[in-house]
Amino acid sequence: MNAIQFDSFGLRSFIKEHEYEELAPQLKVAQTLLKEKSGAGAAYTDWIDWASNFDGKCLAKIKQLAKKVQQQSRVLVVIGIGGSYLGAKMALDFLKSPWYNDLADDQETKVYFAGNQLSAMALNQLLQVIGDQDFSVNVISKSGQTTEAALAFRFFKDELMKRYGQDGAAKRIIATTDASQGTLRQETKAASYDNLVVPSGIGGRFSVLTAVGLLPLAVAGVAIDELLEGAAQAEKTYQKESFTDNPALQYAASRRILYDKGYTTEILANWEPSLQYFSEWWKQLMGESEGKNRKGIYPSSANYSTDLHSFGQYIQEGRRDLFETVVRVDQIESDLAIPKMVGDGDGLAYLEEKTLEEVNQTAADGVALAHIDGGVPNMAVYVAKQDEKSLGELIYFFEMAVAISGYLFAINPFNQPGVEAYKTAMFALLGKPGYEDETEKYRARLRHKRE
Amino acid sequence: MNAIQFDSFGLRSFIKEHEYEELAPQLKVAQTLLKEKSGAGAAYTDWIDWASNFDGKCLAKIKQLAKKVQQQSRVLVVIGIGGSYLGAKMALDFLKSPWYNDLADDQETKVYFAGNQLSAMALNQLLQVIGDQDFSVNVISKSGQTTEAALAFRFFKDELMKRYGQDGAAKRIIATTDASQGTLRQETKAASYDNLVVPSGIGGRFSVLTAVGLLPLAVAGVAIDELLEGAAQAEKTYQKESFTDNPALQYAASRRILYDKGYTTEILANWEPSLQYFSEWWKQLMGESEGKNRKGIYPSSANYSTDLHSFGQYIQEGRRDLFETVVRVDQIESDLAIPKMVGDGDGLAYLEEKTLEEVNQTAADGVALAHIDGGVPNMAVYVAKQDEKSLGELIYFFEMAVAISGYLFAINPFNQPGVEAYKTAMFALLGKPGYEDETEKYRARLRHKRE
Repeated sequence: MNAIQFDSFGLRSFIKEHEYEELAPQLKVAQTLLKEKSGAGAAYTDWIDWASNFDGKCLAKIKQLAKKVQQQSRVLVVIGIGGSYLGAKMALDFLKSPWYNDLADDQETKVYFAGNQLSAMALNQLLQVIGDQDFSVNVISKSGQTTEAALAFRFFKDELMKRYGQDGAAKRIIATTDASQGTLRQETKAASYDNLVVPSGIGGRFSVLTAVGLLPLAVAGVAIDELLEGAAQAEKTYQKESFTDNPALQYAASRRILYDKGYTTEILANWEPSLQYFSEWWKQLMGESEGKNRKGIYPSSANYSTDLHSFGQYIQEGRRDLFETVVRVDQIESDLAIPKMVGDGDGLAYLEEKTLEEVNQTAADGVALAHIDGGVPNMAVYVAKQDEKSLGELIYFFEMAVAISGYLFAINPFNQPGVEAYKTAMFALLGKPGYEDETEKYRARLRHKRE
Repeated sequence: MNAIQFDSFGLRSFIKEHEYEELAPQLKVAQTLLKEKSGAGAAYTDWIDWASNFDGKCLAKIKQLAKKVQQQSRVLVVIGIGGSYLGAKMALDFLKSPWYNDLADDQETKVYFAGNQLSAMALNQLLQVIGDQDFSVNVISKSGQTTEAALAFRFFKDELMKRYGQDGAAKRIIATTDASQGTLRQETKAASYDNLVVPSGIGGRFSVLTAVGLLPLAVAGVAIDELLEGAAQAEKTYQKESFTDNPALQYAASRRILYDKGYTTEILANWEPSLQYFSEWWKQLMGESEGKNRKGIYPSSANYSTDLHSFGQYIQEGRRDLFETVVRVDQIESDLAIPKMVGDGDGLAYLEEKTLEEVNQTAADGVALAHIDGGVPNMAVYVAKQDEKSLGELIYFFEMAVAISGYLFAINPFNQPGVEAYKTAMFALLGKPGYEDETEKYRARLRHKRE
């Protein structure tokens, strides 16, 4: 029984059945490239059967380290950026709450994220929020040299040393890094940090179900076994060769067909604030996988009903190059009866027999119809509920879909060559050793700014 | 002396000088339509000289009510959606902190936002976060019948009555609503709520400098006089007829020229987490003003450096229909020296003489150059600092720019006809009285879902 239902009802007036049939041969090729590991970037496809083969020893170690953190600290600071941030953040919001830290009781360890930007003001404020609470650090970086993470690690290591001394600090650091290479691995060996491994065959944006995402989630009390179980079950469904039996193929094919018709921006929408960061995780997964060679679907997001009163106007009546994929949760744990009032002063009496969640679900139905009528192709991904097994499946669904989609776009879905471009410019301007030849060139260009 | 500097350095390889000259006649028309109030939607242009004419009595009343809230409650719940939410939220983050509630001391009143979505889970969690803290409510709705706000008001009014009784509840409610019409005004009169006015000549997305935005901000300790003063000074600059002296014209013209060349998505980027919601406010301002008649620039956002490790790949190398406007803060209040370490284990020794903020600013320079090289037209809006006067000017800059831009696009920048479409579908499905004819039609369409 799958936790996910894919609904292409809102595509009927935009894609005809024969279009899928005509795409079938290319879809088959994409599947074969992935299955036989013969496509571009195949060295980074270990996520395909990762969950079902998850190393028991690694799982046990993650749990043991999580327990250690829970016992020693009120706060875990997770230092990482990109896939080393978004996966855990998304899952924490989805499974616990965007208010997790505010609602944490004495038995729970709060989780804050750092090293995901370069703002001094933000770091100062985070340090204030943590205050004098005992904290541990999980630094996540494959190489150890990602600027944001390495800088944040310096600050928090400094703070740990001030509070707990050198030995005490070392006991409060868990490094998640490459198995053998890189500066963080070297430091880990030298200082005997607890440590976990960033697998070599899985890129950052696919890493949420590795130690990268699982340790912070275990610390927050997430049932990581079930998350993996959901993904393992999902492997069976979304690896299927049959188009009709495999919603990931249907989603990937629909996106490709829409793109060729000029629908080049996809909005991932949701109806729960706790899914806001699911969209952020998805933006990296899709945008970093597909956005290359001057093509790919632009990943955007909307949080409903909030954004209906924001750029909802644009979605309804702006340029018709948008399509929409809505992640909807079928069963919400906590509902609220709408309070009754004497009279109908606010015009809401007609809703009094409904719950708030019923209103929310009905609004979602109405908005889908309105957007379809407005010319926005609409898909829905229904998730049974916001639990670990469902999320495991949801993650795998989108991972498989983007891999297939990447091969349909004839690009390498597993590299990110463009990320180097800004790093080169930044390192040159910062005067990093090895970039001397570039430094003057970039600095000269800036001299003409603000003239 | 302006707090804002507009920098079009990153457009030089995308727009030639003569293109601005050729657009000048249309720009003149747009300015005239706005100035003479002869364009479409002119009834909603009172924001143009609102700040410089701000009613002293209204200002005094806002301050008096803010003080009352501060004295009676630890928490203010602001109930509103769209412009009745985003303006205050954006300014609170910008001027105080996204962590404002976490960092508030005993003298400060926390500010939470509700009625900005329909999720029962989110509302339940917010109620938990507020817990037993004393709270007051500022309900903001022009008509009183905006579904999200009216529903949330029922919940919080119910809670107030349970805690403080009917009279006590009424003393903790401030209604910001139409001066004379609508259900909320009626209830306000009947129950003698404290109240403020949503002006009739200013649409929601332009309302942050009216009572709508100012009361919550005053409660949080924002110097609202200075916010207004910044906007009043901005009127002088951004109403100027001279293209070279008016950056709002330059920005509007640049966007129009880029759009005609196929750059149809604008990314508003920032380098401070405290500006994330500035982009959300901007998305409503731009998207709701321009996105109609199947045209307009699609408003998107990016938070750097976070998103460079997310869809940064797409921005660097994806479809070339993107352009970027970066809001940058020149002077950050709190900086951090980078901790020194023995050796160069993490490869960051070359940064040890710099502060974190210097790294952040240099990264911003580098990214702009990399994006320009990648084919993304780039503009920057430099703000002196994150204070009230600067924000007042920044708000006015974008408001003026979108008004001019709207007339350049030959649309009405001040209406939002598309917002009705989803409401009709939602009301019909919910069985709202008056929508009976539509109800069966919409319900029938849903019967074919998930088949």
